[in-house]
Amino acid sequence: MPATQTREITLTDTPRGKLDAGNFAVRTVDIPVPGDGEVLLRVLYISIDAANRAWMQGRTYREQVLPGAKMAGGSLAEVVSSNDPQFKPGEIVEADTGWCDYVVLPGKDLQKRTRRGPLTHLLSILGITGKTAYFGMLDIGKPQKGETVVVSAAAGAVGSIAGQLAKSHGARVVGIVGSDAKCAWLIQELGFDAAINYRQENVMKALKRDAPNGVDVFFDNVGGDIFEGVLFRMNTHGRIVCCGAVSQYDTDTPTHGPRGVPGLFVTKRLKVEGFIVTDFFDKSAQAEAELAGFAAQGKIKVAEDIIEGLENAPKALVGLLSGENVGKRLVHVADPQG
Amino acid sequence: MPATQTREITLTDTPRGKLDAGNFAVRTVDIPVPGDGEVLLRVLYISIDAANRAWMQGRTYREQVLPGAKMAGGSLAEVVSSNDPQFKPGEIVEADTGWCDYVVLPGKDLQKRTRRGPLTHLLSILGITGKTAYFGMLDIGKPQKGETVVVSAAAGAVGSIAGQLAKSHGARVVGIVGSDAKCAWLIQELGFDAAINYRQENVMKALKRDAPNGVDVFFDNVGGDIFEGVLFRMNTHGRIVCCGAVSQYDTDTPTHGPRGVPGLFVTKRLKVEGFIVTDFFDKSAQAEAELAGFAAQGKIKVAEDIIEGLENAPKALVGLLSGENVGKRLVHVADPQG
Repeated sequence: MPATQTREITLTDTPRGKLDAGNFAVRTVDIPVPGDGEVLLRVLYISIDAANRAWMQGRTYREQVLPGAKMAGGSLAEVVSSNDPQFKPGEIVEADTGWCDYVVLPGKDLQKRTRRGPLTHLLSILGITGKTAYFGMLDIGKPQKGETVVVSAAAGAVGSIAGQLAKSHGARVVGIVGSDAKCAWLIQELGFDAAINYRQENVMKALKRDAPNGVDVFFDNVGGDIFEGVLFRMNTHGRIVCCGAVSQYDTDTPTHGPRGVPGLFVTKRLKVEGFIVTDFFDKSAQAEAELAGFAAQGKIKVAEDIIEGLENAPKALVGLLSGENVGKRLVHVADPQG
Repeated sequence: MPATQTREITLTDTPRGKLDAGNFAVRTVDIPVPGDGEVLLRVLYISIDAANRAWMQGRTYREQVLPGAKMAGGSLAEVVSSNDPQFKPGEIVEADTGWCDYVVLPGKDLQKRTRRGPLTHLLSILGITGKTAYFGMLDIGKPQKGETVVVSAAAGAVGSIAGQLAKSHGARVVGIVGSDAKCAWLIQELGFDAAINYRQENVMKALKRDAPNGVDVFFDNVGGDIFEGVLFRMNTHGRIVCCGAVSQYDTDTPTHGPRGVPGLFVTKRLKVEGFIVTDFFDKSAQAEAELAGFAAQGKIKVAEDIIEGLENAPKALVGLLSGENVGKRLVHVADPQG
């Protein structure tokens, strides 16, 4: 018998300070009957991303997630039934389903996905985070052979791919992470040249050792003090790829910016560029094909960190914001039945 | 009888906090006899620039000016006598003469200048500051017709030219300055569309009125709170041209950076780029020819603020740092005799 109800995880209030699981609730609601052009989806895997936190605090590149609303989030889902001739039951799509078991969405809001390797790769190396790493590192950072590249949040979903891409282009790659275990993993498993645990060492000092020729490309996911530390070690004509500012997301009172901005941008003649992955929409298929090839050949190792059960999505996000994940964090909601 | 001695203005100590005239001394020294390949120069006009202050605090794109040394500075000078066959008495050159009446320099360190219009134009619109405005606005900012451009320190040597260049490309131009008199001058004399006195108004609030469609290009000379205020009003895919950070130069303890860095760089997908004029050395002759044409045709008004007497150079710089100049500040040392 087909499901008639779905769980939804809602945001109960706009978080003040650090997010915790108490900012969420679960409700069970009837699944609406799909109208003309609409599709009923079964959510399989939910992508958990630091940006989820930023959405709660105000308008970003999307509308704020307001208290009482279902938590937003991108997922991989299976078509259960469809009133849009473009979608058939059993097909796999990606969509902003939010955090739930089932959802009805217009067919026009769904993106059909083709499985290449493990299903979860569609949300990790072949998903938003893998493509973010690809475009940020290769189209903006453009590391050259022999250059030094620093990646912050380097054990995360984006950083782990970004660093490996720079390595494959012949750069010396230094990762910044929050634990010694992550440092060891970057060097031993992913082939990074060096790694810095920012909780144990001053980043600017550690870079004197690990980036003795200075930093040519900084792929930054975190902002804050780490941005400041790397900025002071940038080489003339270096490039800073601004991918995120996760150090500033989990609060309602962002701190001041890094010292040296914009003075060091001038004296070092830096190019500093922010981007989001949809800016490169036109080149998405090409990037996906190339990344799939790297993964299949083992040139890039894909790390995934899968949490079981929709009800654990809040904890999965809270944990991600405190840095507990290694690689791409997903919540497994259901298996495909088609 | 030719001069045998020269005054030199020296830096007596590395300034702590705000620069004042007491950080300088005057000494009189014998003029050395020019050796092989060397040229004796009479200094005519010294360029006074905010960057002079930054040179005292540490290494920038040049070595620090240390206590006891002659103050560094770019000048227009006349060849008095020459042991370099490339230079003849009476010719006009530009060089880092420092603050003095006479200096002996190797011919290879001199740049021959050709007079186009008033002699002083060679240090204003046709000098470092005019070319800085030209390359920063046209090669980096690239204002398009109908876009909104904001210029900070807009009544200064760089800002006054940068704003007029943006205007000539069809942009709406808003200047940020430190007095109502400068606001009136920008609008009435230079044709700016609006001007904000940052000492009287909150920049972010004032821009809601003066840049109602947001800011596409920000040409920034000052950094600090003004950078922050404009950053929050930038449009998606805007460009920030980082030309200077004068708000941070006149201190030995620079403050923290602007809020929203790098978070807003990401969400607004900004391109933020620092530069110095020598990065565009190859295109310098072309820029000079074009700027000379604009000045001759009256398309760009050239404002100069000339202080009389070498001995007043320290006061001229201190005053520039507190914002008293309108247009390009020069110190007049002597007239050409050739």
